Amino acid sequence: MTRGTMKVSITSGRAEGPTKLNAFDNALLDAGIGDINLITVSSMLPTGTEIVELPKFKAGDMVNCVLAYESSDREGDLISAVVAAATSDDFGCVVENTGINRDPEDVKSEAVDMVKYMMDVRGLKIKEIVIADENHIVKKHGAVVASVVYLK
Amino acid sequence: MTRGTMKVSITSGRAEGPTKLNAFDNALLDAGIGDINLITVSSMLPTGTEIVELPKFKAGDMVNCVLAYESSDREGDLISAVVAAATSDDFGCVVENTGINRDPEDVKSEAVDMVKYMMDVRGLKIKEIVIADENHIVKKHGAVVASVVYLK
Amino acid sequence: MTRGTMKVSITSGRAEGPTKLNAFDNALLDAGIGDINLITVSSMLPTGTEIVELPKFKAGDMVNCVLAYESSDREGDLISAVVAAATSDDFGCVVENTGINRDPEDVKSEAVDMVKYMMDVRGLKIKEIVIADENHIVKKHGAVVASVVYLK
Repeated sequence: MTRGTMKVSITSGRAEGPTKLNAFDNALLDAGIGDINLITVSSMLPTGTEIVELPKFKAGDMVNCVLAYESSDREGDLISAVVAAATSDDFGCVVENTGINRDPEDVKSEAVDMVKYMMDVRGLKIKEIVIADENHIVKKHGAVVASVVYLK
Repeated sequence: MTRGTMKVSITSGRAEGPTKLNAFDNALLDAGIGDINLITVSSMLPTGTEIVELPKFKAGDMVNCVLAYESSDREGDLISAVVAAATSDDFGCVVENTGINRDPEDVKSEAVDMVKYMMDVRGLKIKEIVIADENHIVKKHGAVVASVVYLK
Repeated sequence: MTRGTMKVSITSGRAEGPTKLNAFDNALLDAGIGDINLITVSSMLPTGTEIVELPKFKAGDMVNCVLAYESSDREGDLISAVVAAATSDDFGCVVENTGINRDPEDVKSEAVDMVKYMMDVRGLKIKEIVIADENHIVKKHGAVVASVVYLK
């Protein structure tokens, strides 16, 4: 088994804002990834990926990520976003899932089931599953995000 | 204050085409960004970003951008796309906004309000707001784009 | 004419899965691009691009691609995804197209017409058009993908 040098962080955030865009931006700030340029990618972890604490980024950095995002402007809506990352002794997989007015536990367990299936299909034995999830009851414009962030 | 080396350009375009995809492609050509591979990113300007003239690209270059895009195939529709970039002595923010059959001034002022709010939330004092917007009345298949393009 | 060093591969896949996400993931695996991180880009081929066999990727690689993707969870739906890549002695263009319950030949010929138009608009004389398409009749959750993958 070779160890890669990829490090990823897993984070989530939630917020209100005066508009849908600003609520999304505020949720990214709450997650600690609001000051960077996010490039969304699909969802594999290279062999030997380490999951580490979210670092402090330089404003305007270009950063790859898997992003789960949900928003609503209906007062009282329960919005959910979750990412689930599964690691093995080889490579790993990431799943994003979101929901509106669903049981947050269902949204989370669905993500876990999907990432387990992805690992199973590839013949990968799961070592660890790391989850970040966020739920929020909307006041005016609400947003939730959950993300796996790829670090250089 | 450290000065970064990031340069960005701001541009917009509009066009008709025989299909939705071709109208979009023609609008990108009209904006001067039709011959490159666009990778869309979220919306921060690194510290010390300079806003410069759109350069001539090499065909097929991979280029990061923030992209506002609207299209319609209903004759007479007024479609609008706008990007607003705010700079400070530190880093900056970009907003995209679009509209169908809305007052173009409202679509533009909404973008300005949103980018002002983003700067305010981050405690950044605005030095300059640069806007690119495009509006188009649809004949058959119409498209408008506005973009902040990140240069190497 | 200068020859670039960009190489691209063209591929497609189809699959069922227990969820929409897993069907999509399985279709990517079927296409040979399931173990990498896909970053979607718009659709130009640099001058001198060579179309080559899909290589074996290292798991978790970051790879740029143009991706056509369709899915459905209605039993009996016919889903289609196609990419059409046109080359010239200069640069080239790529089009993606998808369909649900449409004649696969129409989805394909539409893609070809669109890429021909893109080349025509740019004054490029077509040397070759390479197509990858995939069609699938849905059982539970079905997905089809077709992709032009940019290689380093």
